[in-house]
Amino acid sequence: MSLPKTYKSLVSTVTEGGQLRMEMVEKPMPVPTADQVLIKVEACPINPSDHGVMFGYSDMSKATNDGDALVAPVPPMGMRMMKARIGQALPIGNEGAGTVVAAGESDAAQALMGRTVAAMGGGMYAEYRCVPIMSVLPVNEGNTARQAASSFVNPLTALCFPETMKKEGHTAIVHTAAASNLGQMLVKICKADGIPLVNIVRKQEQVDILKAIGATHIVNSSDEDFIPQLIDAIHETGATLAFDATGGGKLASDILTAMEGAAARTPGAYSIYGSIHHKQVYLYGSLDPSPTTLTRGYGMAWGVGGWLLPNFLAKAGMETAIRLRQRVASELTTTFASTYTDEISLADALNADIVGRYNAKKTGEKFLVNPTL
Amino acid sequence: MSLPKTYKSLVSTVTEGGQLRMEMVEKPMPVPTADQVLIKVEACPINPSDHGVMFGYSDMSKATNDGDALVAPVPPMGMRMMKARIGQALPIGNEGAGTVVAAGESDAAQALMGRTVAAMGGGMYAEYRCVPIMSVLPVNEGNTARQAASSFVNPLTALCFPETMKKEGHTAIVHTAAASNLGQMLVKICKADGIPLVNIVRKQEQVDILKAIGATHIVNSSDEDFIPQLIDAIHETGATLAFDATGGGKLASDILTAMEGAAARTPGAYSIYGSIHHKQVYLYGSLDPSPTTLTRGYGMAWGVGGWLLPNFLAKAGMETAIRLRQRVASELTTTFASTYTDEISLADALNADIVGRYNAKKTGEKFLVNPTL
Repeated sequence: MSLPKTYKSLVSTVTEGGQLRMEMVEKPMPVPTADQVLIKVEACPINPSDHGVMFGYSDMSKATNDGDALVAPVPPMGMRMMKARIGQALPIGNEGAGTVVAAGESDAAQALMGRTVAAMGGGMYAEYRCVPIMSVLPVNEGNTARQAASSFVNPLTALCFPETMKKEGHTAIVHTAAASNLGQMLVKICKADGIPLVNIVRKQEQVDILKAIGATHIVNSSDEDFIPQLIDAIHETGATLAFDATGGGKLASDILTAMEGAAARTPGAYSIYGSIHHKQVYLYGSLDPSPTTLTRGYGMAWGVGGWLLPNFLAKAGMETAIRLRQRVASELTTTFASTYTDEISLADALNADIVGRYNAKKTGEKFLVNPTL
Repeated sequence: MSLPKTYKSLVSTVTEGGQLRMEMVEKPMPVPTADQVLIKVEACPINPSDHGVMFGYSDMSKATNDGDALVAPVPPMGMRMMKARIGQALPIGNEGAGTVVAAGESDAAQALMGRTVAAMGGGMYAEYRCVPIMSVLPVNEGNTARQAASSFVNPLTALCFPETMKKEGHTAIVHTAAASNLGQMLVKICKADGIPLVNIVRKQEQVDILKAIGATHIVNSSDEDFIPQLIDAIHETGATLAFDATGGGKLASDILTAMEGAAARTPGAYSIYGSIHHKQVYLYGSLDPSPTTLTRGYGMAWGVGGWLLPNFLAKAGMETAIRLRQRVASELTTTFASTYTDEISLADALNADIVGRYNAKKTGEKFLVNPTL
């Protein structure tokens, strides 16, 4: 197969002049080195974790099109926060899948020729992407690029929650925004692995979604008796670890308050400095960009902090990473099945109206970028 | 020496009826077992860390005397938070010093007879206290009980900040409320050990206090350019760890923001997910009881959490504890010298007017309880 000399790729730049500029650029077609493969990209999800690089701290309510480029103003505070990336055209798209159309000379690279593979490593919103074979996951016979598009971010994040749990000495998990694609994967993983899981959602229809896939502890934060319900669920499961996708507001603090309330019911779990066992909430997303508020009425043995998949994987080591990837490949169309509501082209991804829709991050809506369209 | 049959001790109780009640009780004089000593208590500091057990979540603005007892109403929220201690008469006073007047039969206990010792272990606001010899620190020849009263909480806390720093891979420290007794100890420790320290204070007079003892990085949070000053100081020291005594408000978040700002100036320290090195703020006090507000504009590699001396020491192990105690004993009147502005009796400690004064936690004011008065 003869390849074109250049390919189209999406990049995002914060300009000196205070503008966020996302646009299509032509790049020269790379030649894979020994341990690299060149992927013709066919399907990439737009994940909340992509939005940071795409839009940063710009004011997206004022986004418009300037020719084919998407532009949005960046307020002065945003410019200060993004100082380190000013002037750099950053490639976007954390993950995706496609077909290997060229391979380096190593046996391992050659073995991937023609295979459908998923890849993680940034710059996937592009017609082609050259990556080290270490960043590639070959999918099982019969699985498609669309099925494999979300093989990394959501599946590995969901798998790394129980890994974090074991590593840090907890025995159950609380999860928020629990009806998301990722949340549904976590329900299936925890069910298969016998890990007690408390699911927090905001709406009755989300309760129904989770019930249908076999979740047992589901708490609706819109209920008036949310906190007492949450204390009951935490008491029953013994959860002292939570992963919160919302980030902002009082939810992380409410979870710690409920953990403390559950501990106060447990003989021997309480001292004059509050409950004894360390209670941890990791903020792995920022669906609510408002500040996080902590009331601190939960003693001294607690922590709140950011949680980022690449940082965790780097600490967990290669063996863990390989084990988790193998599980993703073998359960790609069951545990790790993703559903998409929209499929768009690279050009569509720059259209201000369409950007407004996928930037809304509505539960149940999920966009797929298909660079072959 | 013949001992009385009973002794006076202060206790604090949250009643079923929603009242905080602090009072004097008579307890039978204990007889030390083999590895215990009985201390005639002569001097105990009132530390902020004592206030939690003494007053809990009661409304101290409405505290009055009921006979000799101090009483204060507890709001419903406070009752929920203190569920685990309702009805228990908790002994108060974390630490103090005095003279060993009886000792168990073991050689180690007998060797302490007549010695001036400091002790930690609760219930020190009392005429006598029987403790295991492991909880006792014999002071050097010539040092008094008053000098030894604060041998544990502040000195060990200050010493454990650099211990935490080393254990968690940081190389410098930010400290708030830095002109406190503890803060001054930390300045001396860091100076002696060559650890860069950024001191945050609120007033010019506190800047002067710290300058006088040789602090180099001092930032006044009342200055208009507080954040830029803090970024400079953090950039110069490389601090990625902070200990915050205030707990509430925006200070912890401001410190993380400044750490992120400092990282953005450092080549290679920044990724698209924010700065790479983990940034940690430990809240070890609650001088500001308002909620903690986190703006989260500092990437994903950060954490905020409670820090409690006994929890840290339990993890650090016996060897560390012994090494740190020996340093306290040998530097008791230099690095670890404490100053007291008021000396009060056990009865005084229950007087609502006097309680109002020591509960105000003003910088520079420090109360000593002397049960022999």
